[in-house]
Amino acid sequence: MSSTEVKLSRLLILAQKFNNFYLTGFHKGDIRPFLVEGQQVGLIKSDVLKQLVKYPEVFCIRDCEQTKQGLVELNPAFRDYNERTEQLEKVLRNLRSEELFPALQGWRDEYFEVKSDHRALLKMERAATPLFGVRKYGVDINGYVRHPTQGLCIWLQQRSNTKETWPGKWDNMVGGGLSVGFGIKETAIKEAAEEASIPSDLVKNLVSAGCVSFFFESRQGLFPNTEYVFDLELPLDFVPHNADGEVQAFELLPAKECVERVFTPDFKTTSAPVVIDFLIRHGHITADDDFTQIVELLHVPLQSLYIYKTRLEQIQKQQKQQQQQQEKLPNDESNCNCGSLPIKPLENGHKKAA
Amino acid sequence: MSSTEVKLSRLLILAQKFNNFYLTGFHKGDIRPFLVEGQQVGLIKSDVLKQLVKYPEVFCIRDCEQTKQGLVELNPAFRDYNERTEQLEKVLRNLRSEELFPALQGWRDEYFEVKSDHRALLKMERAATPLFGVRKYGVDINGYVRHPTQGLCIWLQQRSNTKETWPGKWDNMVGGGLSVGFGIKETAIKEAAEEASIPSDLVKNLVSAGCVSFFFESRQGLFPNTEYVFDLELPLDFVPHNADGEVQAFELLPAKECVERVFTPDFKTTSAPVVIDFLIRHGHITADDDFTQIVELLHVPLQSLYIYKTRLEQIQKQQKQQQQQQEKLPNDESNCNCGSLPIKPLENGHKKAA
Repeated sequence: MSSTEVKLSRLLILAQKFNNFYLTGFHKGDIRPFLVEGQQVGLIKSDVLKQLVKYPEVFCIRDCEQTKQGLVELNPAFRDYNERTEQLEKVLRNLRSEELFPALQGWRDEYFEVKSDHRALLKMERAATPLFGVRKYGVDINGYVRHPTQGLCIWLQQRSNTKETWPGKWDNMVGGGLSVGFGIKETAIKEAAEEASIPSDLVKNLVSAGCVSFFFESRQGLFPNTEYVFDLELPLDFVPHNADGEVQAFELLPAKECVERVFTPDFKTTSAPVVIDFLIRHGHITADDDFTQIVELLHVPLQSLYIYKTRLEQIQKQQKQQQQQQEKLPNDESNCNCGSLPIKPLENGHKKAA
Repeated sequence: MSSTEVKLSRLLILAQKFNNFYLTGFHKGDIRPFLVEGQQVGLIKSDVLKQLVKYPEVFCIRDCEQTKQGLVELNPAFRDYNERTEQLEKVLRNLRSEELFPALQGWRDEYFEVKSDHRALLKMERAATPLFGVRKYGVDINGYVRHPTQGLCIWLQQRSNTKETWPGKWDNMVGGGLSVGFGIKETAIKEAAEEASIPSDLVKNLVSAGCVSFFFESRQGLFPNTEYVFDLELPLDFVPHNADGEVQAFELLPAKECVERVFTPDFKTTSAPVVIDFLIRHGHITADDDFTQIVELLHVPLQSLYIYKTRLEQIQKQQKQQQQQQEKLPNDESNCNCGSLPIKPLENGHKKAA
C-alpha cells in the first residue's frame, strides 16, 4: 500500500486538472448565471455571451438590480416547456451552422432535460450543454473482481474510436449520462447491458456507493458534472463484451496498474474522479497528508454555484427586514431638534443623525 | 430501501446542521484568519478577538495591506515552537481563569499540535482549539455486521456521562482525535483497543474508506473537522466492551434503526457525518434528488478557507507582473506632451493618461 502513497501528489495534480474551472475559472469574473423561469440552471462565459447578444428576442442580457450581478435570462415571455425548447434550439442550430463552437460540431440529436427543483423547464441538445454550463448528471459502474493472487482488480473499457467525445480513451467499465425519462439505477442497469452485456443475475448485485462532483473546462465548454457511482463485484470468470458499438476493448487491471493507467493521457480526464473515489473507498489510496484535499476535490460544492435565486431571496429578505426595522424605530429623538434627520447606526452600536 | 428515501429531506436538514458555520457563519463577516509564522492555521471570531486584543504582546491584530483582510497574528518575534506554545498557553490559562469561554471550562491538559505543511508550529490545549478555529483531524471506525436476517447492522457506542464533550450521547463505535506523535491508522488501532477492546486479529481487517469534512459551530466555538473513516466488518458473535471508562454502552442496530438514531437529539451531531457517509457508501441511503447535496455537505472544501498565504502570494505575483509589464511598456507616448504622466489601462483595453 505504501507504493500508492508516493503517488499522492500526482493524484492532487490530477484532481486539480479535472477541477480546472472550479479552481481558477471563477476568479476571472467573466461568468454569468443563466436563468430560466427565474431559476439558475447554468453559467455562461463571455465567449458564448458574445454570440447570444445577437438574439435579443431569445436572451435578455441584463444586470440584476438587487444582486448587482450580470445575468443571461431566457426570454420569460416564452409560455411553456415547448416554446422554450424550440426557441433555444433555433439559436443552437444557427450557432452550429456558423461553426463558432467546437461543442456544437458534435451535435447528437439527443436531448438533455434542464430542470430546477424537480421541474422540467426545457430540453436542450446534449452537445450544447457545456456552452451554457448546465449541471450534468451521469452514472458510472466500477466493475471489480477480488482476485485470489492479484487482489482487487478493476475492469476498464476503451471507448470506441468513433465516439464524439474522448474517442479511444480508457474509461470506467460502464458509464452514461442520465436521459429524459430514465431513473438513476435504471440508467445504470440499461448501460450495463448495452456497454458491457452484464446479465440481470449479475447486475442485481449493483451497490449504490455515493457520487462525485467536479467542475472541468475544456475547448468544448464547461462540465459541472455529478456522477452517481455504483460498485459491482463480478465473478472471476466473467468477461464483459460490448453490445452497442461504443466500446472497442475491456481490460482487467490490478488496482495498482489501474492507478497508473488513470495518470496516462490515454485516460478520459472526467472519468478519473470515479476511479479515484473507488480506490479511496476500498482502501487502495490511503489517508495521508494530501488525501483530504483530494477527497474534497472529488466533491466540490457545485450546489453553491447555482444559487442566484437563493441569493436574491436573501437580499430581498434583508431589505424587507431593514425596512421594517426603520419603520419600528422608536422616536427617541423627538425631544431634540434633529428628530427629522435620517438615523444611521454606527459601528459601535450607537445611533447618530446622518 | 424506499423507506430510507423519504428521509432524504431530514438528512439534508441534518447535513445543514453540522455545517451551520460553513453555510451561514462566513457571511456574517466577523471572522479573521489566524496566522502563525505567516501560515494561516485558524479562523477567529469577533467574540474571541475582543479578548485577544488585551494581549498585544502575544497577538498582533492588524489589517493586511495587500489582501485588505483583518488578521490575527501570533507575535512573529517568538523564536520557536516552545516559546510560541508557552506564550499562547499563558493567555489561555488567563482566559480560563476569567471564565469567559465555556470551551476553556473543559480544559483537558491534553495537547493538540498545530501544523502547517507538515511543519509543527506550536501545541495548544485541546479544549482551546474551537476558539481559534483550528482544523481538527480525527479517526472513526464504522463497526458493522452482515446479519443473516437483519442485513447490514451497525455498532454504536454511548459516550460516558462523565465525558467533557457530548456526555451520554450516542456515537460511532470507535472514534478519537489525532494526537501528537500518532499516525492515522495507528490512532484507529489504538482507539479500537481502548474504546471497544477490539483484538488485533479483528482490527487487521480495518479498511481505510476516505474522510468526511464539515464546519460546525456551537457555544464552544468552531469545529472545522476532518474525520478519517475506517470500516471494520465484525463477526456476528463479537461484542465490543469498553476498556478506558469513556463508553457506557454499545448497541448493534440494523441500518434503518441506525438512521433513526442519528436523527434523535441523543446522537452526537458531529459524529453524524461518519454514519451518513457509511450508509451512502454501502447503498443504504440511495441516490435521489437531494442525495448529491448531502454528499457535497459531507465533504465541504475546508482547504479553501485556510489559504491566506496562497492568496497573498497570488496578489504579490500579480503586482509583480503588473510592475514588470509597466516597465516593459513601449514608450509610444514619447511624441506627445503627456508622456511623463502615469499610464492607467482602461476597461476597453486602451491606455489613457491618468
